[in-house]
Amino acid sequence: MKTIGIVGLGVMGASFAMRCKQLGYIVYGIDIDHETIEYALDHDMIDEGDTKGDGSLWKCDMVLLALYPKQLKSWIEQNQKELKPGTLLLEISGVKSNISKELQNILRPDLELLSIHPMCGRESRGIRFADPKIFENANFIIIPLENNSTKAVVAISAFAKELGCKNIGVLSVEEHDRMIGFLSQLTHVIAVSLMNTHENAHLVEYTGDSFRDLTRIAKINEDMWSELFVLNKEILLDEIDQFMASIQNFRTLLQNEDIDGMKKEFIQSTDRRKKFDQ
Amino acid sequence: MKTIGIVGLGVMGASFAMRCKQLGYIVYGIDIDHETIEYALDHDMIDEGDTKGDGSLWKCDMVLLALYPKQLKSWIEQNQKELKPGTLLLEISGVKSNISKELQNILRPDLELLSIHPMCGRESRGIRFADPKIFENANFIIIPLENNSTKAVVAISAFAKELGCKNIGVLSVEEHDRMIGFLSQLTHVIAVSLMNTHENAHLVEYTGDSFRDLTRIAKINEDMWSELFVLNKEILLDEIDQFMASIQNFRTLLQNEDIDGMKKEFIQSTDRRKKFDQ
Repeated sequence: MKTIGIVGLGVMGASFAMRCKQLGYIVYGIDIDHETIEYALDHDMIDEGDTKGDGSLWKCDMVLLALYPKQLKSWIEQNQKELKPGTLLLEISGVKSNISKELQNILRPDLELLSIHPMCGRESRGIRFADPKIFENANFIIIPLENNSTKAVVAISAFAKELGCKNIGVLSVEEHDRMIGFLSQLTHVIAVSLMNTHENAHLVEYTGDSFRDLTRIAKINEDMWSELFVLNKEILLDEIDQFMASIQNFRTLLQNEDIDGMKKEFIQSTDRRKKFDQ
Repeated sequence: MKTIGIVGLGVMGASFAMRCKQLGYIVYGIDIDHETIEYALDHDMIDEGDTKGDGSLWKCDMVLLALYPKQLKSWIEQNQKELKPGTLLLEISGVKSNISKELQNILRPDLELLSIHPMCGRESRGIRFADPKIFENANFIIIPLENNSTKAVVAISAFAKELGCKNIGVLSVEEHDRMIGFLSQLTHVIAVSLMNTHENAHLVEYTGDSFRDLTRIAKINEDMWSELFVLNKEILLDEIDQFMASIQNFRTLLQNEDIDGMKKEFIQSTDRRKKFDQ
């Protein structure tokens, strides 16, 4: 029977807790908010919980840090003394540049920290939106650094399968953050910018699927995403610039009424998009 | 028992034909392609059909022109002599500037032409994708000009209800094309430009809902959309410029690591988007 500590019972941490309980893990929950702990205990999401962790961390084989990226360093500095040697720490932040390596530098040498990215976030935040089913068929990416052990990578790959994830991939920090910069962060910048282009409440009654699809992710957790954008700033600026060059190119074709040029763009986008059909 | 002629049995025309048959109309189908007529007859989409229309147009109370915008003028010039006085013509092109008024100028004075926009297009083209259910709960917009009769507007409003449409609105040409420029055309420009930002086939396995949602409409009929974009060029260029200013504004906030500024954008987009939830 494995014992897992989950630090931060927001929507992701609490979803992990519920799923691990289903799988038979002993789950310790740690959250600075007393009411969150009460809620987790009342809903049988965790076996034990407290606001500090000094009573339970030493019992854990594995500790999942489901915190905002900027909280990770101070949490490790203050709490790693409680962990038993060999404990595997996991962090799940949405980008890894400016995070993983800095954390390795302050980590006790007898502990291991592995970066993962379960790609199954939710628009809403907080324990009330937790759901053990979010892992089902999700993508799960492991982003190891040089000092990570093969043993840890193999164990977490098995853990991801246990959770129910489908595609389990291994990427470098650079590959991961470039992929996230395009597929996730750029799409959120576009959705937010489209929603903010101009006032539009009077258009609600005419709206069809196109506009709804393109702006669904304009509902966004402002605290987390502003932090993640800054952490991945250079890549995201570059992706924004490439997108703006693409739309500027299309604008020029339209300005010149270049029908053939526009058709080429449409044919290319149609061909490329077909590859993404599930 | 009403008699309707449908000119052009593409995905829209044939969907109208099927729905009108369900409602008990006598439906004459006209298409330049002989095989399309055969297909429509074989599948009981129309009562009679031919490639010219000189045998059936005189019998119609109403004629729906489901043609590409640029085909409308020459069709009217060549065929209106066949129509009986008082026939109501409908045209369904996706934008109305540079279309409706020009057509009125060549129309026989004893005929009436009313512009409508049933907002229920399909990604795929051709009679094989026709579906009588596309009108169910769709938005239906009537775009009358000054010389249109109240009688025709009322009759077509009732027709739209019969089809199964939910929101039946009346807009001016300018209001309609501005709305379409933002909600439909700009969103397609964005989806196509995002898909064409750079090569991305290697990212398929990591793709989640965000990217799929934003690029679904990047699969696009290149012939029709390039035509519609040029017809609404001035408005669409203006909407693209406003969107690019919005994304440039966000880029500057990110460049400056202006967390508070980004949060304001996120909060505004979240608030605005909530109004669009169904």
